[in-house]
Amino acid sequence: MSSKIPYKIYLNEDEIPSQWYNVRADMKNKPAPLISPADGHALTIEEMNPIFCEELNKQELDNNTPYFDIPGEVLDFYKMYRPSPLIRAYFLEKALQTPAKIYYKFEGNNTSGSHKLNSSIAQAYYAKKQGLKGVTTETGAGQWGTALSMACAYFNLDCKVFMVKVSYEQKPFRREVMRTYGATVTPSPSNTTKVGCKILADHPGTTGSLGCAISEAVETAVTTPGYRYVLGSVLSQVVLHQSIIGLETKKALEKYDIKPDIIIGCAGGGSNLGGFAAPFFGEILRGEANYKIIGVEPSSCPSFTRGKYAYDFCDTGMICPLAKMYTLGSQFIPSANHAGGLRFHGISPILAQLYHDGYFEARAVEQSSVFEAATQFARTEGILPAPESSHAIRVALDEAIKCKESGEEKTIIFNLTGTGYYDLKAYQQYNDKTMTDVIPSDDAIKDSLSKLPKIGN
Amino acid sequence: MSSKIPYKIYLNEDEIPSQWYNVRADMKNKPAPLISPADGHALTIEEMNPIFCEELNKQELDNNTPYFDIPGEVLDFYKMYRPSPLIRAYFLEKALQTPAKIYYKFEGNNTSGSHKLNSSIAQAYYAKKQGLKGVTTETGAGQWGTALSMACAYFNLDCKVFMVKVSYEQKPFRREVMRTYGATVTPSPSNTTKVGCKILADHPGTTGSLGCAISEAVETAVTTPGYRYVLGSVLSQVVLHQSIIGLETKKALEKYDIKPDIIIGCAGGGSNLGGFAAPFFGEILRGEANYKIIGVEPSSCPSFTRGKYAYDFCDTGMICPLAKMYTLGSQFIPSANHAGGLRFHGISPILAQLYHDGYFEARAVEQSSVFEAATQFARTEGILPAPESSHAIRVALDEAIKCKESGEEKTIIFNLTGTGYYDLKAYQQYNDKTMTDVIPSDDAIKDSLSKLPKIGN
Repeated sequence: MSSKIPYKIYLNEDEIPSQWYNVRADMKNKPAPLISPADGHALTIEEMNPIFCEELNKQELDNNTPYFDIPGEVLDFYKMYRPSPLIRAYFLEKALQTPAKIYYKFEGNNTSGSHKLNSSIAQAYYAKKQGLKGVTTETGAGQWGTALSMACAYFNLDCKVFMVKVSYEQKPFRREVMRTYGATVTPSPSNTTKVGCKILADHPGTTGSLGCAISEAVETAVTTPGYRYVLGSVLSQVVLHQSIIGLETKKALEKYDIKPDIIIGCAGGGSNLGGFAAPFFGEILRGEANYKIIGVEPSSCPSFTRGKYAYDFCDTGMICPLAKMYTLGSQFIPSANHAGGLRFHGISPILAQLYHDGYFEARAVEQSSVFEAATQFARTEGILPAPESSHAIRVALDEAIKCKESGEEKTIIFNLTGTGYYDLKAYQQYNDKTMTDVIPSDDAIKDSLSKLPKIGN
Repeated sequence: MSSKIPYKIYLNEDEIPSQWYNVRADMKNKPAPLISPADGHALTIEEMNPIFCEELNKQELDNNTPYFDIPGEVLDFYKMYRPSPLIRAYFLEKALQTPAKIYYKFEGNNTSGSHKLNSSIAQAYYAKKQGLKGVTTETGAGQWGTALSMACAYFNLDCKVFMVKVSYEQKPFRREVMRTYGATVTPSPSNTTKVGCKILADHPGTTGSLGCAISEAVETAVTTPGYRYVLGSVLSQVVLHQSIIGLETKKALEKYDIKPDIIIGCAGGGSNLGGFAAPFFGEILRGEANYKIIGVEPSSCPSFTRGKYAYDFCDTGMICPLAKMYTLGSQFIPSANHAGGLRFHGISPILAQLYHDGYFEARAVEQSSVFEAATQFARTEGILPAPESSHAIRVALDEAIKCKESGEEKTIIFNLTGTGYYDLKAYQQYNDKTMTDVIPSDDAIKDSLSKLPKIGN
């Protein structure tokens, strides 16, 4: 513990980056545009403005501006919980007896419990600036809904969250945090929207789905004057906002002259991996450096490792624009997995293009091995990690163990996106040894991919 | 936000104090000793050693040594989550439009969610050093049990937690965190102890009590070779360990030349208030400075404001030594209150003596006003506070509002002991407007106080 590098590297508040980095500006092959599901034309800002906030649409479609100024009010809010620490995992290294040097960026030190706050506060800011009354969104596990509620409370903006009914009932704690921050939380499907009423009529007793909740949130946004719809992942604007993670990490590393060899992030919709790795991708793209970057996904929902690079719907309800992603098909139903944030059939178009062009590798891991890693991490580093984040921990441990075997002193960094304080049911299954791993069959994926839209493909 | 004082004051890791401060050394009137319930004689170390750890007993009985070195291994562990930030509540000040300057020390930024870890790691260290196999304890709400589980995992020490049955069933999340850290969690009363069997036979269907869980933990410690019993509050050793909070706070204040006028902490058993205020009490006792120090307790369990300064049992089961405290009587049953950590009938003998000698004042507040303060704090400062901690927030807000009325620029600091992530049922009651306040009648307190032991009084 007597190293010159402290256990936790904290930047000063005035070292918080004042700009977000747009990795698309350095990409030779730009990510494919969002297209209309009707005729496949690339969507314009004007077409997106009735659904999404105007300034966010500009960010969404801008493939060329390398840096965007972070508004002062967003920077102020960042000071509530940022800079987040870059932690040297001395205790874990000792437990593993590895020569590897392990660091993690800890994004869970805030009441939303994850990195989602980095984008929700930006989105709430632009909504407020546009003079809107409020925003709508959907939430499954509840991380994004919580983060958006906190951001809306700060800007005194109304926040309507459609929460998948089964989560609403099974995760009352998440629901109450959102209510405490003043949000309205409606179990979806509900009778407050046309699409909700139709689904309730067609499927009485349904416990809902993310696809349905998205549809309800979008319908509410476009039919309620002064409201727009916002989204916590997948979109390029979210990767842009999440670049704050990578920029801070890079500054902290440079402060202590640390050069990483391996960079690891978990991948669901891709916002944390994209944001964390963004400046490192930038260096690779500009030919300034090289890193081994690894995206980690659950074996139960293996978009990168077993999906197809194609245009697909982002939502199960098939009402949103088409995005070109690595996808398992919008109708793919992943088997039970406790990493709710990673149960998405597709991935950010930015990451999809970078993966397609060979800028990083992907690995799929099974959840029982993920919880084994999570438990070891909790006991040695003192932080109970979220199931999502623990996918990155699993691969960091694997790489550190390889270093032990080879004797290599590699520097490994990963993004610890959040805490697992509301995921104790999953830990209970692991503790009770009743956790199972289910890997989708080739046939299931083939069947789901056969239903990809014709448009764009 | 452009002040020279940052939003969060973080000390460097090498500025973590290397000694705990023992406020008893500066007290002219020493706290009354623990005495035997049989004949009232002051207990000796030898008499305490079969139940508690030897080194901790030395600390418990030492009224004269002003500083104790923090062992290196404990300091290492502190680096996992310390120094904790001293936060300037800029956002709250702005919302209140007060000229007061408000600071809070945030002790909840760790997986146990509270300051309890400061003492549990010290207690686990001394147990390990003594060559013990494990420790036993009781937990009600679960904060102490969680903190002890984390500390025991670090030192590879067995940890047996007796959890009040009603909490065990209603707070499965807390239970699973403890299990994830390798602790055995037994719902109390259980059939694993004689006292548990007797209670189960006498009261079939009972949901348990803290008093019963203490009795089971003590019995297990004294009947299992290689085990001792440990406790998370009330004892002087715990106040000693918790002085780390106050010492860090003082260092951070001095770094920016800030002089507090008002110092506020919530009070249950007294460990956080005692530890947070310790160095400030020291200055007052030595005649070097003066501060207004306020202890805040729930109106439903008003030990300071309506209790009696007398010898009493610490446990409902009446098997532990007698301590001289402000007490409502060990048989007092507080009405329902969501601040589980403040539902204790007595208070640390150190604080009892200081209060008796007029070194600080106490205030009792009702829980609906506490949750009103908690919600305002959560929305403006971005941290969802524990119900216990929110008692301190309530009084900090009251004092800041007084400053607004009088125009005084007072500096107010309080201890934010923990987060409310597992207290969302309480927040739900507040959000649903079904929260009630129940204040005990004079007759109820009189009746309870009439049952104080004869010994010592």
